[in-house]
Amino acid sequence: MAELSPPSGVEVLCIGTELLLGNIVNGNARWLSEQLAALGLPHFRQTVVGDNRERLIAEVQAISRRSRVLITTGGLGPTPDDLTTEAIAAAFSTPLVERPEVWDDITAKARSRGREPGAETRRQALLPLGAEVLPNRTGTAPGMIWSPKEQFTVLTFPGVPSEMRSMWQETAVPWFHKSGLSKGVFSSRLLRFWGIGESTLAEQLHDLLDQANPTVAPYAGHGEVKLRVTAHATEEADALRLLDDTEAVLRQRTGKLCFGCDDQSLACVVLEQLRQRQQTLSVAESCTGGGLGAELTAIPGSSDVLLGGVIAYSNAIKETLLGIAPASLEQFGAVSDPVAQAMAEGVRRLTGSDWSMAITGIAGPGGGTEEKPVGLVHIAVAGPDDCSSQPVRLGATRGRDWIRMVSAGEALNRLRLRLMEAG
Amino acid sequence: MAELSPPSGVEVLCIGTELLLGNIVNGNARWLSEQLAALGLPHFRQTVVGDNRERLIAEVQAISRRSRVLITTGGLGPTPDDLTTEAIAAAFSTPLVERPEVWDDITAKARSRGREPGAETRRQALLPLGAEVLPNRTGTAPGMIWSPKEQFTVLTFPGVPSEMRSMWQETAVPWFHKSGLSKGVFSSRLLRFWGIGESTLAEQLHDLLDQANPTVAPYAGHGEVKLRVTAHATEEADALRLLDDTEAVLRQRTGKLCFGCDDQSLACVVLEQLRQRQQTLSVAESCTGGGLGAELTAIPGSSDVLLGGVIAYSNAIKETLLGIAPASLEQFGAVSDPVAQAMAEGVRRLTGSDWSMAITGIAGPGGGTEEKPVGLVHIAVAGPDDCSSQPVRLGATRGRDWIRMVSAGEALNRLRLRLMEAG
Repeated sequence: MAELSPPSGVEVLCIGTELLLGNIVNGNARWLSEQLAALGLPHFRQTVVGDNRERLIAEVQAISRRSRVLITTGGLGPTPDDLTTEAIAAAFSTPLVERPEVWDDITAKARSRGREPGAETRRQALLPLGAEVLPNRTGTAPGMIWSPKEQFTVLTFPGVPSEMRSMWQETAVPWFHKSGLSKGVFSSRLLRFWGIGESTLAEQLHDLLDQANPTVAPYAGHGEVKLRVTAHATEEADALRLLDDTEAVLRQRTGKLCFGCDDQSLACVVLEQLRQRQQTLSVAESCTGGGLGAELTAIPGSSDVLLGGVIAYSNAIKETLLGIAPASLEQFGAVSDPVAQAMAEGVRRLTGSDWSMAITGIAGPGGGTEEKPVGLVHIAVAGPDDCSSQPVRLGATRGRDWIRMVSAGEALNRLRLRLMEAG
Repeated sequence: MAELSPPSGVEVLCIGTELLLGNIVNGNARWLSEQLAALGLPHFRQTVVGDNRERLIAEVQAISRRSRVLITTGGLGPTPDDLTTEAIAAAFSTPLVERPEVWDDITAKARSRGREPGAETRRQALLPLGAEVLPNRTGTAPGMIWSPKEQFTVLTFPGVPSEMRSMWQETAVPWFHKSGLSKGVFSSRLLRFWGIGESTLAEQLHDLLDQANPTVAPYAGHGEVKLRVTAHATEEADALRLLDDTEAVLRQRTGKLCFGCDDQSLACVVLEQLRQRQQTLSVAESCTGGGLGAELTAIPGSSDVLLGGVIAYSNAIKETLLGIAPASLEQFGAVSDPVAQAMAEGVRRLTGSDWSMAITGIAGPGGGTEEKPVGLVHIAVAGPDDCSSQPVRLGATRGRDWIRMVSAGEALNRLRLRLMEAG
């Protein structure tokens, strides 16, 4: 496979049967991926194997044939199933030798806790002949930086995230720069869209999706669509300029569909719009049952804007708390524009907020009818000057949670657009 | 490497540049690992590659030489960087053919949302000649089950976790049994605990964690602790009997700490307790901002029990809607037992419910003081006869979301225990 991954490629190998059993999620792989991207290192493959000596040896040998750098996590501990160092040495038929400085360090750390080091911990002082120690300040298991052959270097880290991360920052990052493998800078930005499907957006922007630098890649999730823009340059400033230029083009071509960047959720954006106007917000929720309020209050500082709201799950509460006329519940049904509007006006009156949102719908799986199917949701936005409601049909197939989540997003997006008009 | 992984081996290949960039954590790999373990299938390796056609083809070919089954996630969408199906077909020089039934399904789903399917989505109806459709009830992208050569089968799934999971349960699990790869019957049950840490529970049950059949494995997550009990037998009935016996022992040794099984969340359990007593519930939420209501209303049929509630984020709303005396807000502060109790009593009075829960706390990151640090949450439960509140200290280190989530869980657990006492 050498012709597929250039020798500059970096691979991550995570070692631990607990990963293959699903006992823990592989957070180390995700963190290392982010770090490699930030260093602009080509990272084509991640592998997970268990605590098995033969398989470990074969995997390390295979990687050494196709990649320039191997980063391993896990298997450095003192227990018999910690095989990483031993297997890597065996993969290149190299003897292990004890490093006195490592053993001294292990001993010192044990004594600082008022103990003598256990005999089993002595294994951790063994490293392949010629390997450089990758010190572990916090834990006892050191890693190594070792080039067993031309154009191939392996860096080993413990599986404990905190130890792995500090060792990465202190030793690996400087090594990548010194070695000249980290060339230039990759910078990445996420543009976020609401109100358009992934495929439609991709069609509209197919020319940009084909360009090489910055690259633009779409993906969908939680009712929104995201475009990941990644730029490569020699200097950070140039990479950012490339990102800014592409973002400008994307925003110009997609208009109000793009609601934010990176960590800016719809809720963040709406809260910021209202904060700038020094206005307040309240919510009235039926089928979302508090989910919209939860999304807003998930954001630190939301209390500047959000006063609160009413979870009006039963019709009785729609009447008593929100003051909705029994007649209109009777005439139009709880899932209707008139009731959504009355909910929004009711909660705005009750809380004295400047703006409010109301959601009433059929989240399913039960409760749907011919005329009002599962997935039908009426969403109202009320403000100082007016109150309007429209239905949205989300379909039944994606299920209750999805309908509730997308309803909340749709409400936030309508308020966002309304506030943009209001200027 | 064939001699290393027996041809019975199952590999997981996760496809998506977002994984290699570290944009998302690979939760699918973890979930699939758990499932494979529960089916008793040998699982030796996981790989992650990006949206790169050549690398994908080479990886699939390599896996087909060393393993019996390949499970892929991701890359089934409608956009140009979704290459999985095409690459797998190319890996075995097999043409793609359109499946009319898939295109009909895509069209029907689009129309149920009031849209016409985009031309781009038509790619999703293409599958390799001879492949069996793996239906996707919730999303548009179907997967496939395909044996391109002797002793090798590939199953493809979308990257969207909810779609992947339901497709796995409905199609993959039966296939593994039918194919005879999953020998005998592995039956698995999840026991769920609240109010005890993973390590403490593991210590108390260490003898059971060591037993071979059923196996008992602990998982922590979202403030609760789970024990997965997996029994292996020749007949389903025997496996279930083994599960029942172990569950009985576990429940007997853990008492009220065990709140449910499998899909029974704390919210489900509490709603069921109240349904049986034909009693109703309401909530008053400050720092959770609707999250508790959202958790309850996530469960279909919750409207039998939950009337609604008040999101009392600002003190003004605590006073006006819930009728809390300004004096007690003044004297004790919003985060205190007296205010939590007044919130619970207030919402119970307002909604006329039999029971209510109230949550007020400091979710952080700001707002903490020496005496009332981030993570301090006061939780009250009110019923027909009494109302009581106690604080819980959740600490600041795990962050705002975790504090809010665990506060909701803690409230539900207190009501659960209260209802058990009430008998």
